[in-house]
Amino acid sequence: MQVMRIAVAGASGYAGGELLRLLLAHPEVEIGGLTAGGSAGTPLGVHQPHLLPLAERVLEETTPETLAGHDVVFLALPHGRSAELAAQLGDDTVVIDCGADHRLTDAAAWDRWYGGEHAGSWPYGLPELPGARDALRGTRRVAVPGCYPTAASLALFPALAAGLVTPDVVVTAVSGTSGAGKSLKPHLLGAEVMGSLSAYGVGGVHRHTPEMVQNLSAAAGRPVTVSFTPVLAPLPRGILATCSAPLAGDGAGARETYEKAYADEPFVFLLPEGTWPTTAATLGANTAQLQVTVDADAQRLVVVAAIDNLTKGTAGAAVQCMNLALGLPETTGLPLTGVAP
Amino acid sequence: MQVMRIAVAGASGYAGGELLRLLLAHPEVEIGGLTAGGSAGTPLGVHQPHLLPLAERVLEETTPETLAGHDVVFLALPHGRSAELAAQLGDDTVVIDCGADHRLTDAAAWDRWYGGEHAGSWPYGLPELPGARDALRGTRRVAVPGCYPTAASLALFPALAAGLVTPDVVVTAVSGTSGAGKSLKPHLLGAEVMGSLSAYGVGGVHRHTPEMVQNLSAAAGRPVTVSFTPVLAPLPRGILATCSAPLAGDGAGARETYEKAYADEPFVFLLPEGTWPTTAATLGANTAQLQVTVDADAQRLVVVAAIDNLTKGTAGAAVQCMNLALGLPETTGLPLTGVAP
Amino acid sequence: MQVMRIAVAGASGYAGGELLRLLLAHPEVEIGGLTAGGSAGTPLGVHQPHLLPLAERVLEETTPETLAGHDVVFLALPHGRSAELAAQLGDDTVVIDCGADHRLTDAAAWDRWYGGEHAGSWPYGLPELPGARDALRGTRRVAVPGCYPTAASLALFPALAAGLVTPDVVVTAVSGTSGAGKSLKPHLLGAEVMGSLSAYGVGGVHRHTPEMVQNLSAAAGRPVTVSFTPVLAPLPRGILATCSAPLAGDGAGARETYEKAYADEPFVFLLPEGTWPTTAATLGANTAQLQVTVDADAQRLVVVAAIDNLTKGTAGAAVQCMNLALGLPETTGLPLTGVAP
Amino acid sequence: MQVMRIAVAGASGYAGGELLRLLLAHPEVEIGGLTAGGSAGTPLGVHQPHLLPLAERVLEETTPETLAGHDVVFLALPHGRSAELAAQLGDDTVVIDCGADHRLTDAAAWDRWYGGEHAGSWPYGLPELPGARDALRGTRRVAVPGCYPTAASLALFPALAAGLVTPDVVVTAVSGTSGAGKSLKPHLLGAEVMGSLSAYGVGGVHRHTPEMVQNLSAAAGRPVTVSFTPVLAPLPRGILATCSAPLAGDGAGARETYEKAYADEPFVFLLPEGTWPTTAATLGANTAQLQVTVDADAQRLVVVAAIDNLTKGTAGAAVQCMNLALGLPETTGLPLTGVAP
Repeated sequence: MQVMRIAVAGASGYAGGELLRLLLAHPEVEIGGLTAGGSAGTPLGVHQPHLLPLAERVLEETTPETLAGHDVVFLALPHGRSAELAAQLGDDTVVIDCGADHRLTDAAAWDRWYGGEHAGSWPYGLPELPGARDALRGTRRVAVPGCYPTAASLALFPALAAGLVTPDVVVTAVSGTSGAGKSLKPHLLGAEVMGSLSAYGVGGVHRHTPEMVQNLSAAAGRPVTVSFTPVLAPLPRGILATCSAPLAGDGAGARETYEKAYADEPFVFLLPEGTWPTTAATLGANTAQLQVTVDADAQRLVVVAAIDNLTKGTAGAAVQCMNLALGLPETTGLPLTGVAP
Repeated sequence: MQVMRIAVAGASGYAGGELLRLLLAHPEVEIGGLTAGGSAGTPLGVHQPHLLPLAERVLEETTPETLAGHDVVFLALPHGRSAELAAQLGDDTVVIDCGADHRLTDAAAWDRWYGGEHAGSWPYGLPELPGARDALRGTRRVAVPGCYPTAASLALFPALAAGLVTPDVVVTAVSGTSGAGKSLKPHLLGAEVMGSLSAYGVGGVHRHTPEMVQNLSAAAGRPVTVSFTPVLAPLPRGILATCSAPLAGDGAGARETYEKAYADEPFVFLLPEGTWPTTAATLGANTAQLQVTVDADAQRLVVVAAIDNLTKGTAGAAVQCMNLALGLPETTGLPLTGVAP
Repeated sequence: MQVMRIAVAGASGYAGGELLRLLLAHPEVEIGGLTAGGSAGTPLGVHQPHLLPLAERVLEETTPETLAGHDVVFLALPHGRSAELAAQLGDDTVVIDCGADHRLTDAAAWDRWYGGEHAGSWPYGLPELPGARDALRGTRRVAVPGCYPTAASLALFPALAAGLVTPDVVVTAVSGTSGAGKSLKPHLLGAEVMGSLSAYGVGGVHRHTPEMVQNLSAAAGRPVTVSFTPVLAPLPRGILATCSAPLAGDGAGARETYEKAYADEPFVFLLPEGTWPTTAATLGANTAQLQVTVDADAQRLVVVAAIDNLTKGTAGAAVQCMNLALGLPETTGLPLTGVAP
Repeated sequence: MQVMRIAVAGASGYAGGELLRLLLAHPEVEIGGLTAGGSAGTPLGVHQPHLLPLAERVLEETTPETLAGHDVVFLALPHGRSAELAAQLGDDTVVIDCGADHRLTDAAAWDRWYGGEHAGSWPYGLPELPGARDALRGTRRVAVPGCYPTAASLALFPALAAGLVTPDVVVTAVSGTSGAGKSLKPHLLGAEVMGSLSAYGVGGVHRHTPEMVQNLSAAAGRPVTVSFTPVLAPLPRGILATCSAPLAGDGAGARETYEKAYADEPFVFLLPEGTWPTTAATLGANTAQLQVTVDADAQRLVVVAAIDNLTKGTAGAAVQCMNLALGLPETTGLPLTGVAP
């Protein structure tokens, strides 16, 4: 197979940086155009000092022209930007959107949560979901999931699909601050973040909620409600999702259900009984760690999932989907080991 | 009023250190005996370098003799140690136990969660709970609550007492690592903790669960189930509890219920609408910050509470109860402002 | 003595917030006007959620009018702003400038390092320096030192004054990120700061350098060169300064020199031999911890100092100087114990 | 070339874990025996949850027998343990010692700093030092440098070798806490480390000092004194070394000297002028970032170096040396990009 030429739009941000880190280690690709918005014209090294081999590459404007001529284009842009760009990139180009534009299948949901016209949905980039992998093989368009929905969906879909729980789930997910992007907001300053925990988007108003509802309802085969609370914690990367739902029965077979769901998945690890996930173990890796248990007193199934929000939660998933789209082995170029301690 | 002479047993640990920090600033007390277990014979400054005015005080053994002759004795000891000690301190001494021994009223619950003989219960040191303050005034024995139950009980009791929710609550509480004490365990090492999030005691097995059940069932007037998941995060101090329960009705009046519950409480602050608690704002303060909202899609009430686990969660509550026991103004010597950023 | 009415200009920033935290606990003052620049018109609680008792106070514009009518005005403003304001506040008002405008005595130094016209110097707010305290008693104008110069000057002036070392000192000072203020710059975002160490202003170009030179040259009685390297570390507060200089003799008497220099100082603690300063022990306290040793191989005296950059490094020093200016006991309202762990 | 079979002694520690992370990604090796001390008999996953592909591998005792039959043996053991083991491993085995035993060439220095009999020196594993690479090619024994000496030697040897500075250097190096190993000591607990900066081993008593003296004296061709102060900061990994020395002349040509010294080095990056190293950019990478400047006022050359103490500072250097010993391309399997943010 010939080397694929890729472009990254939004190369100065956190998702863009993580994409490039992974792509530099990918044996089947060559890094082509790197584009940005306000940072166009500056060298990448200013924004991504850890990407030493690309330090002197100068960022171009994000336009259809600068992105043309690549086999694969990754879009790491603010939402609302990708539909128009993608339309100008040609049907043969693999376009992988790390933004939200094409994740929701329901136009009304799009309008409620994001507003404006719905750009339509693309194959959803969580191959571990039932049916998702087949839709991703050979596709030319991929909607990469949000980081929270990735963690929550991996944690809960097997239980919902197996009817182990009733469809009213509660998710509290704690996240590192890179999930908020490289935004210059006072509450994201280091001095504010370090030594503090804070909730935000409480009460079902975070935009990742409808994505969880969509994934979990599909798995359950009926409407699922999701009470989602995101929490910001003082670390750069990592999501720990604690998820639970009322037991439909006595919870017997819960572990077996999860073992079976993930037996053949290369990136999802159900830990040995009694061991609980830590985000550090997934740092920089395209892995998810899971553990499941039954709370007999509260009559709930509890599942905990750990991922790196920038890797399995964004850029790693994007590369995993690129592999599927291009017909490469799904695990090509993706790390299984985290950087710890 | 004459100055009260106080002793602290367990002065080398985190709870002991925070007690002394607060007591040094308290206008009505004089710090007497400081005792410890394995650290007896060493100066306090070795263990608590921040307590400069007490740096040269030498720790004595924790015995009835070294603790005798004080008006107030604080016990910050491993569980199972306080009943016997307290029995030898005389009925006139105010004994304030920061451990678990006298928190649970039900002997069977004690046996299930801690094992061994139940030492009986003492007035419970969360004055904000219905009826609790009266039992604490003038008492000679106080059981200081656990840090997680403090956060979860303040977050949820008003809704349960008012019948706003059904009695099946879910609590995910994220905590700094001082909550685990000064224990030399590998998973508490700085290199392990920093940059990581982890869950532990998942599935209803954390010993703070029955304490939440006890408090919330009393408030609700019927049995409450609590699905509790604690999460360890990379900060020294702070608990952020995200709590929710199914709405019993439409959630109308939720904010008013909380406003009323805490209108006269000096240490509990319901934040302005749209503002969410951060633990940094409570650092070193005896305060709790709360916010409440209704998730209409999930039909749940969601409450978030922030405290400092060592202050309002332990040592601040202990001093607050001492004030009540001694007939002092409840707020004497207790900071309302956190140390931020 | 009647209660003094104080105002804080720049109340929404980090220095302003720390001033208010300390002043809320000060028994002789009443908090009057709170002013800001871009944040004028908003409640303080939005910017300083830890200052609960002042949460609803609305910020006014920083003008001579809003600051008029106070006994003491603290200025926590960008440099270049205080001279003109102070001139309009009246000679009877105690004006305490946390900015740089009046620190340097040498107009040429001002021009080189800050540019523009020199506003003249005010009594320098580091009472521990030889002669400084007398100049501060009863003064109506105070220039609060920079945080790095405070740490480095306390660490080195006794050795230079005693002739223990030659006047070529090297200072590497590691700082928490609040030292950079609440500035919306990418390198100060939490995700950038956490998990990283970085140097900046290397090679003698940091503006605190001439202030160190001024203080240390005065102590030595001859010109001192200072090679200063600041390092940013992942914590909100704290400065650890490692300072050294070539021995002039054999280093004998070093400890005694420091003991003598600080014997009567209420806020500077020379630690017991073999114990080294930690910034956590000074968190939120107006203290400095010091240790000194001789490196016989390298023939250098090495001194390490720890302070909280916002307390002894800025706002605590400001209050200490206010006490001197007003004729109050110097330690009034200032904490000696840090908040640890 | 056939696949090399490697063993790691001390696989449960931080250096051992990082070795395995790198070796899992190395195309020319196969991971054989994993041994430990007190952790023998337990699965690796308990100690290194990030090394998912090796999670079920059971640790054996560290003995000559368990280490026999491998092409390469990495020793990550407490000092004093490697000489005897190595003697029993056969002269054909490549033995790479991450401990201190064979770093110092001077028996008297060994006796002074470590005590006991000197085990003799092995080729020193910092290929970037003059002459070092040749001694490492094809060797069967390697002494991997200490992490601080790696940073300081890379920062300073070019200037000393070129005579740009006089031989009295000052080094303050700030480090993450994994440098202290997985030691159960109170001051390494997360709650103590987070939010604090502390110096230790001050005054030339840290055992890495003689290693710096040895490297830099060799480069200078005359005795060099090193005033070394290590500082512990709240991050898991990373060393930022700030280094300086008096100029011998006017400092002209400093940048060119460094450009020339590192022009052909694959892992050492002299950053563009005006850009300063950050440890985050080296996280998990085998790189060093450098910047150099002249402080004309203080008449000193100042150099700042950033490395990951576990990668270029330990395990990455070990693999780099293995590549040289085995005749592989030096960069095989070693990451150039850090994991940031």
